[in-house]
Amino acid sequence: MKTETISWENGTVRIIDQTRLPNEFVYLRLRSVEEVWQAIRQLKVRGAPVIGAAAALGLLLGINPRRYPEYNRFRNRFRHVSEYLSSSRPTAVNLNWALKKMEAVFKSCSSRNTREIYSLLQKQALSILEEDKVSCREMARSGQELIKNNDRILTYCNTGMLATVDYGTALGVIFKAKELGKNLKVYTCETRPLLQGARLTSWELERNKIDATLICDNMAGYLMQQRKIDKVFIGADRIAANADAANKIGSYTMAVLARFHNIPFYVVAPRSTFDIRLKSGKDIPIEQRNPEEVRSLFYKKPMVAKGVKIYNPAFDIVPHGLISAIVTESRILKPPFEKKIIRLLNPKK
Amino acid sequence: MKTETISWENGTVRIIDQTRLPNEFVYLRLRSVEEVWQAIRQLKVRGAPVIGAAAALGLLLGINPRRYPEYNRFRNRFRHVSEYLSSSRPTAVNLNWALKKMEAVFKSCSSRNTREIYSLLQKQALSILEEDKVSCREMARSGQELIKNNDRILTYCNTGMLATVDYGTALGVIFKAKELGKNLKVYTCETRPLLQGARLTSWELERNKIDATLICDNMAGYLMQQRKIDKVFIGADRIAANADAANKIGSYTMAVLARFHNIPFYVVAPRSTFDIRLKSGKDIPIEQRNPEEVRSLFYKKPMVAKGVKIYNPAFDIVPHGLISAIVTESRILKPPFEKKIIRLLNPKK
Repeated sequence: MKTETISWENGTVRIIDQTRLPNEFVYLRLRSVEEVWQAIRQLKVRGAPVIGAAAALGLLLGINPRRYPEYNRFRNRFRHVSEYLSSSRPTAVNLNWALKKMEAVFKSCSSRNTREIYSLLQKQALSILEEDKVSCREMARSGQELIKNNDRILTYCNTGMLATVDYGTALGVIFKAKELGKNLKVYTCETRPLLQGARLTSWELERNKIDATLICDNMAGYLMQQRKIDKVFIGADRIAANADAANKIGSYTMAVLARFHNIPFYVVAPRSTFDIRLKSGKDIPIEQRNPEEVRSLFYKKPMVAKGVKIYNPAFDIVPHGLISAIVTESRILKPPFEKKIIRLLNPKK
Repeated sequence: MKTETISWENGTVRIIDQTRLPNEFVYLRLRSVEEVWQAIRQLKVRGAPVIGAAAALGLLLGINPRRYPEYNRFRNRFRHVSEYLSSSRPTAVNLNWALKKMEAVFKSCSSRNTREIYSLLQKQALSILEEDKVSCREMARSGQELIKNNDRILTYCNTGMLATVDYGTALGVIFKAKELGKNLKVYTCETRPLLQGARLTSWELERNKIDATLICDNMAGYLMQQRKIDKVFIGADRIAANADAANKIGSYTMAVLARFHNIPFYVVAPRSTFDIRLKSGKDIPIEQRNPEEVRSLFYKKPMVAKGVKIYNPAFDIVPHGLISAIVTESRILKPPFEKKIIRLLNPKK
């Protein structure tokens, strides 16, 4: 069975509904761009690389050339749908990265008719999915030199198959290490408020027969204090030119804890996650989500007194100074990062 | 209306059932020592000072002199019930501190008949409750020099009225500051897994009309990074001779974050929380609680894949080196702590 997190099937987008894991493994078929937008916003599909893929496929759903046979209307529709999808979530740059790839194809074939353009866009969207799969395998191989036999690894949020088209970023490195016969012990933080670590990462680790222990986010420091963690592996949603990395809220806390305990802190991310138009993490927009996610989403009753405000940022920024290395497809970047990031993205320079 | 967290009423122990807050404010009447033991274990009554009070009153429920009129049987029953109550939770020393106070009274009046002894024990138990109330007010006053107008304070778990007989330890200092007209902004961490911060501290702050914002535990670092926190106030469950302090799991992480950001980290605790028989935090027993608390207690369904292990320590240790000051009833202790702690507990020396 194909278990890809996202795929294009007979003109629809098939995703695993991540809000129903680990209790139910259910595929959803999305048939309109609005459904894709909602699925991204509601985290039915989440994880920086896979929401790039979802945006590309969502775009296809919105620009049926049979409804927009005339070029100008097709182009306007393309722009409108692209902006709409771009508004679904602000932090992960992969979403805009994918939309820009689609736009580049569009611009390159303006002389064609809309059916031909659509066909080329579809090809581009599918190749974004294929490239993501290849990219994950490359990162997994590239990261191996950072994992030793018997390592005890802390990971955060979900960076596995479910965060990508297949396999994963930080979890991909861990899966590959396991495939290569390395014995590992992995601690996964539950990742409040939406519990991606508890619900998704635990499920993926269990599925891959990796020795997994769940902790609450507030237990990570205590584990490090007891010298039970050898290294930390996380993903990223956007990496600025200076290597400051936005990632799930709490990542910064993990990075500070790792530094305090002299534990290496590794970020695993594909080239598509870098956004070197932004000088530093200060320029990365941080999504603020609905307080209800903290108050009562998973609960039968509100867990908070009425009138109490709730702050619910979805991401924070790990400053480059707290990052020991960034694992990418082709190489492992170590500090100082800046020039290496430019070379990574422009290999010919 | 008396809203004390615990009281002795007509031969029963009345407590606020803390597991039902903030949605329901319900008193429970405990009529046997077994009910008190369960209430402590299940955190219906929780917080280091108040479980000391609960142990003292629970002891009274277990040693009815009409059932044990003969001295030797009464004494044996006293010992048995005391050991039983002591086994309810291991980390907070206040529980054993209160039981020892009761034992001292028992020993001092062995020549009396059991009804007279019981009457003296009851007097001691009630004075433990009264002393706790006085002690909270004293700490609240003593801590004022650490709080300025417009301070933005981070607090953790629950250290208010609900953690004591009345008023609170760290939250007591905050309540007093508010009463004195200081303008405060308080961030409370939800405190996984049992959400004492979300459920109890938010409720108390709201009730006291203090500007309160709830965050998930993993957001504390991000707030500090943004310079939104001026100081941290927490309580303690046991403080060793070198000032290492056991407190709710996650306290250590908050202390590391505070140090990294040069934010003062204050512990507020009464004399009864010090246990100078223990040299350091390494000697403090850490309670391990049921993994179900992490897995699904507040949820409709398990949030974790089957087969995944769960680690659920209830406390961690803040090493004395990360503590800026300890607020006690009579004075504020600053590093180096050791001699000051001895003087605090033996004022005549």
